[in-house]
Amino acid sequence: MNRKIRYGMIGGGIGGFIGAIHRMAAAMDQQIELVSGAFSSSAERSRETGAQLYLPAERCYPTFEEMIRREATLPSEQRPDFIAIVTPNHLHLPAAQLALQHGFHVLSDKPATLNLKEAKALRDSVKKSGLLYGLTHNYTGYPMVKEARHLIRSGKLGRVRKVAVEYPQGWLPIRLAAAQKHIWRTDPQLSGVGGCVADIGTHAENLAEYVTGLKILELAADASTFMGHLDDDINILLRLENGARGVLHASQICVGEENNLNIRVWGELGGLEWHQTEPNTLLVKWPDRPGERYRTGTRYLGPAARLCAHTPAGHPEGFIEAFANIYLNFANHIRALHENRKLSDDSALDYPKIDDAIRGMAFVEAVLQSSASNARWTPLTLG
Amino acid sequence: MNRKIRYGMIGGGIGGFIGAIHRMAAAMDQQIELVSGAFSSSAERSRETGAQLYLPAERCYPTFEEMIRREATLPSEQRPDFIAIVTPNHLHLPAAQLALQHGFHVLSDKPATLNLKEAKALRDSVKKSGLLYGLTHNYTGYPMVKEARHLIRSGKLGRVRKVAVEYPQGWLPIRLAAAQKHIWRTDPQLSGVGGCVADIGTHAENLAEYVTGLKILELAADASTFMGHLDDDINILLRLENGARGVLHASQICVGEENNLNIRVWGELGGLEWHQTEPNTLLVKWPDRPGERYRTGTRYLGPAARLCAHTPAGHPEGFIEAFANIYLNFANHIRALHENRKLSDDSALDYPKIDDAIRGMAFVEAVLQSSASNARWTPLTLG
Amino acid sequence: MNRKIRYGMIGGGIGGFIGAIHRMAAAMDQQIELVSGAFSSSAERSRETGAQLYLPAERCYPTFEEMIRREATLPSEQRPDFIAIVTPNHLHLPAAQLALQHGFHVLSDKPATLNLKEAKALRDSVKKSGLLYGLTHNYTGYPMVKEARHLIRSGKLGRVRKVAVEYPQGWLPIRLAAAQKHIWRTDPQLSGVGGCVADIGTHAENLAEYVTGLKILELAADASTFMGHLDDDINILLRLENGARGVLHASQICVGEENNLNIRVWGELGGLEWHQTEPNTLLVKWPDRPGERYRTGTRYLGPAARLCAHTPAGHPEGFIEAFANIYLNFANHIRALHENRKLSDDSALDYPKIDDAIRGMAFVEAVLQSSASNARWTPLTLG
Amino acid sequence: MNRKIRYGMIGGGIGGFIGAIHRMAAAMDQQIELVSGAFSSSAERSRETGAQLYLPAERCYPTFEEMIRREATLPSEQRPDFIAIVTPNHLHLPAAQLALQHGFHVLSDKPATLNLKEAKALRDSVKKSGLLYGLTHNYTGYPMVKEARHLIRSGKLGRVRKVAVEYPQGWLPIRLAAAQKHIWRTDPQLSGVGGCVADIGTHAENLAEYVTGLKILELAADASTFMGHLDDDINILLRLENGARGVLHASQICVGEENNLNIRVWGELGGLEWHQTEPNTLLVKWPDRPGERYRTGTRYLGPAARLCAHTPAGHPEGFIEAFANIYLNFANHIRALHENRKLSDDSALDYPKIDDAIRGMAFVEAVLQSSASNARWTPLTLG
Repeated sequence: MNRKIRYGMIGGGIGGFIGAIHRMAAAMDQQIELVSGAFSSSAERSRETGAQLYLPAERCYPTFEEMIRREATLPSEQRPDFIAIVTPNHLHLPAAQLALQHGFHVLSDKPATLNLKEAKALRDSVKKSGLLYGLTHNYTGYPMVKEARHLIRSGKLGRVRKVAVEYPQGWLPIRLAAAQKHIWRTDPQLSGVGGCVADIGTHAENLAEYVTGLKILELAADASTFMGHLDDDINILLRLENGARGVLHASQICVGEENNLNIRVWGELGGLEWHQTEPNTLLVKWPDRPGERYRTGTRYLGPAARLCAHTPAGHPEGFIEAFANIYLNFANHIRALHENRKLSDDSALDYPKIDDAIRGMAFVEAVLQSSASNARWTPLTLG
Repeated sequence: MNRKIRYGMIGGGIGGFIGAIHRMAAAMDQQIELVSGAFSSSAERSRETGAQLYLPAERCYPTFEEMIRREATLPSEQRPDFIAIVTPNHLHLPAAQLALQHGFHVLSDKPATLNLKEAKALRDSVKKSGLLYGLTHNYTGYPMVKEARHLIRSGKLGRVRKVAVEYPQGWLPIRLAAAQKHIWRTDPQLSGVGGCVADIGTHAENLAEYVTGLKILELAADASTFMGHLDDDINILLRLENGARGVLHASQICVGEENNLNIRVWGELGGLEWHQTEPNTLLVKWPDRPGERYRTGTRYLGPAARLCAHTPAGHPEGFIEAFANIYLNFANHIRALHENRKLSDDSALDYPKIDDAIRGMAFVEAVLQSSASNARWTPLTLG
Repeated sequence: MNRKIRYGMIGGGIGGFIGAIHRMAAAMDQQIELVSGAFSSSAERSRETGAQLYLPAERCYPTFEEMIRREATLPSEQRPDFIAIVTPNHLHLPAAQLALQHGFHVLSDKPATLNLKEAKALRDSVKKSGLLYGLTHNYTGYPMVKEARHLIRSGKLGRVRKVAVEYPQGWLPIRLAAAQKHIWRTDPQLSGVGGCVADIGTHAENLAEYVTGLKILELAADASTFMGHLDDDINILLRLENGARGVLHASQICVGEENNLNIRVWGELGGLEWHQTEPNTLLVKWPDRPGERYRTGTRYLGPAARLCAHTPAGHPEGFIEAFANIYLNFANHIRALHENRKLSDDSALDYPKIDDAIRGMAFVEAVLQSSASNARWTPLTLG
Repeated sequence: MNRKIRYGMIGGGIGGFIGAIHRMAAAMDQQIELVSGAFSSSAERSRETGAQLYLPAERCYPTFEEMIRREATLPSEQRPDFIAIVTPNHLHLPAAQLALQHGFHVLSDKPATLNLKEAKALRDSVKKSGLLYGLTHNYTGYPMVKEARHLIRSGKLGRVRKVAVEYPQGWLPIRLAAAQKHIWRTDPQLSGVGGCVADIGTHAENLAEYVTGLKILELAADASTFMGHLDDDINILLRLENGARGVLHASQICVGEENNLNIRVWGELGGLEWHQTEPNTLLVKWPDRPGERYRTGTRYLGPAARLCAHTPAGHPEGFIEAFANIYLNFANHIRALHENRKLSDDSALDYPKIDDAIRGMAFVEAVLQSSASNARWTPLTLG
């Protein structure tokens, strides 16, 4: 299969944020090419976006339905391998299902769906289709997040006792004031049942489970709404597998914060700490010797972190590189399927999948349910 | 009153940690002198400690009872003005009460007592005595903590919405393994009802209330015991006055952490962040302009932070200097009383008092009660 | 000109570092596409590299001469707009000149040539050709470097008095030990007259002049060779325009350092500090108010920094994004020429050009000459 | 000798900075007591200062000559053991010599004298007297500076190849503008031959030689005067023993900097980095494994760093604690002499002595001489 993997994009019209990120992430490693799109609910804006991306006009569609149906009929040397979905949340599910029905692998922005029930329906669709489904919980694409996971898996930190994971963010006050562009984010019909919990709380949940390898068993949550109609601040106690305890908090009213996602884990033998704001450093702490600074691109890292670094040490990598790792692993998986080939290294299969989507939506619902019952301990059940 | 303020010390025998800290803190500013002590329950060790401190043998006592009684009979030019109490926790109350009964002001290490009931009894004793009672919640002695409080009080950050306060500490695994010296810390009879919650959780609670000026109204707590007999890890949801929400967690099983007390507060207009590990920096964050680094000793700080800096900017101040500020303000208060003088500036009266002790013990009991009822919301009541 | 800008690449065979960086940088923004290459002096390796990049075999050439000659004959809808040169240093000049002679714009890795005399010859070729020449002094592509320059240009820091610029790097001991791959870097015939001074010293020189807007007038240099045959450590005193003084040091024997390029500038009114290891933060310092942390992607930045950010604040950008900014501005310049259009904003023209190449080589020669005469003050003359 | 070490102070009147620092440093460890003073050239201010320090009036003198003569006649149970000198620079020598003549050990603020010739005369006086002479190059009192030296001495970093030591400071513009108080600092008659080079450049020189254990052999210096009458900015190339190279720069016009003294050293096997602004951390760097953060108060440190920590890890120590270590070691040395006792550990003798004073003045003169001859390499000769 000596060609780039091809994709079409749904959503991501000019001026939007996340569509542009996806396209840069897909393009960076030169393994994937954009061939078509339904970039906007406005047909004109879709066409215009396509033109700016140098796509032929005939492959820019006014609706995602039309796009999927038409693209599915193209000869195999033109057809996309997968569809990337970067629309507002309420379209994630219908777009994904239609794409799967027409034989396309799907890489979707998160949340996968508006609620857990839908997520389970989507899982069924994925299973039935036999196709790949990826979800851009992009933060797990950072090399040092993979290294954190590797250190814990390898037992270096001992049994995990405590996790503190946070996502303080400050954008809501600014953007609510400045524009209506994000209005769908505070409308449950368009964005789903959770506000902050779905938008960024799930990133924290996903990160915690990914790094520790432990599932959240139950939680006690206090969700608040300071500004909009949905929750914009969540504070949560966690109980995880193996007796580990934790705290998770996320917020969109933390004025002055950027995307300050961070995680700390303490085991019996050592601890670790990672911050998205300085993503190339992983702090590792020991009881009886100096703390260490692991760095992206170095030779002493484990295989997963080494595999996904774009550059040797000394060349800071960022958000887009981490995002690109999701795209790259997804594309590599497609390529392996095409070539009927086993991937030589598990790390290459390491991108968030439908099960992560399910857990994310179950987390959102557990948080809202717990909060509604005054922070009662609530199991994170997949239903 | 042209002389140093004099004090006697109860506890603090050679080799102990906290007694030495108190003595350095008291000595640094040359306003206070140590004149007597009952440094240990071993008469010989008490005498030996006194000798190393160049005290006359006749002012080193085998028991605190004897010390207080004898020192109370000394002529006024020799008598201590106050008694500093640095014993294991279970002696804090009896020593304080006896000192008050004999006319001495009291400066006590924390916790003030073993439980809330005792704390209230102590409050009564303090009130009845008309004497001063100070508690070494030393972290509020840091200049940048005072500046944080000042910024919030002055309205610069707007109404406070969220507080995150933490005290991860890693000593328990090391010390339990290494020595029996700290054994009283895990025995409820000697150290009080709470373990981690009393030992360091109260520091976090005190810091949060001090900085925000908001009281904790209720809390939902999950306390765990990983190693000893008492709680060594606490994770807590907070609801404070004015609708503010928060998270507090403290732990003694966070391998590799030092005394990583830290606080972040976000208001409607801005946020702030302070870490004890780098105590001379206060980060202040704004939605629409660059974040700022406030620094100890600079001229742009508010009056409280300026008053309590020992040096101009550029000379890092540490734990002992912060501790010294508690001692210095306490001594200044005594001096003002002696001279029948109003203190010109409120800041000079700014040290933790019996009400902080009460709130601390109420916090401990609320945490334990909430945790025992599976993290049910529990009011922090003073009874 | 509704199409991507096209380029062919000379050098950059599989397994090399810098070719891959260039290709990722070019690809990221989806404005530029790779259409051909002479990737290696080994014909087979060139073909193989091209295959991995999904290029048609007929556009992968065994030598750069053949590539340039053949590509120049292609119809305009296939011909590259520019040639990217990423070979070992000694081929930079011949490849660039041949490309210019055949009507291609050139974007070259640095150093442009092996010495100043050659650089001047190249300048003549560029001028004669009327074509664009860009040099990948990539560090000036970072948004916060552009902001630093903007702050100084706008007079916010007052007249510049002092500059400290550094590039400590630790790779030499490791790589000399590990492999022969970099052997050309220590052979003057292949890499040029300077070792460390040319390889990374010029980055420091370029950064200092770019940020301050001041030219280096003279310098006193002490160059040493600890390991190879060329200088691997340089320490330099600087005198710049307007009476500013400075220090520049760069080294490849600083064990444990990554690419720790950094700059500090102090003016009459304020100072600034930037580190490549944490490239999204620019520290700005004032005499009488808190220091500030400017951050990539925020709205308070000047136009140049805003224009070249790939993402809003909170999404760390790295080395490849900065590199991409060089490619993007270069491509935008080509596009503007094609469309016979004035670029609306100077910032868009902001990439290193032949004059930077000249100054870089003049710097290298001044350093070596000064060092050879025992650190005598030596003017940086362009000859 | 079961008593505190006693000292009298020359200089240090109320409102001054450095006198207060010395007194806090001396007091902190409770091994030293202040018994007399000639705090100011104004008799009234001297008396007033003494009163504020609770000294008896009869031991506060109008001149240092009177003080030394009178105190020398006191009975041995009252006489000071040493004299601390904290006057403006031009009085350091006469005060020290008079004190030595009268049998007092001397602990002097730096610089020891106004020039090298005087420093050598002082050395003769010290030798003749058989008394102790200490110099408060206080930065070497930091535990992590001692650890840095220990790591190098023990060979962990291999042969030292490069040193970068800096002292950027920003106070001059502010204080020149604000007050005349520091006017003596820019008058050569009162402060000595060097400005910035003597005031802070010597701290950098002392730190570099202390940490590396290597002497500076020769230097090439460029000193500038931006604001006052003396040099306020120095940039220097260094050649040290064993072929090591270095850069030293110090400045008082670095607007926005505090006392940003810092040092980095790179050896064949590893590197280290220390900053006075965060003095409790020592970064240690390795070619092939993660960098490490050594921390004050931990158990893995070498003997010197352990001996001089005031607290266990987790309690930040600062400038005064470091300063106190100079006083404490000096006092311990006096005590050992009194008791005719060998000090059990070399570390206890580790404070700057007359030879450091000599080297400091030789450094100042070499810098000024080199700068006057346009940065010619100039040996650092002790004459």
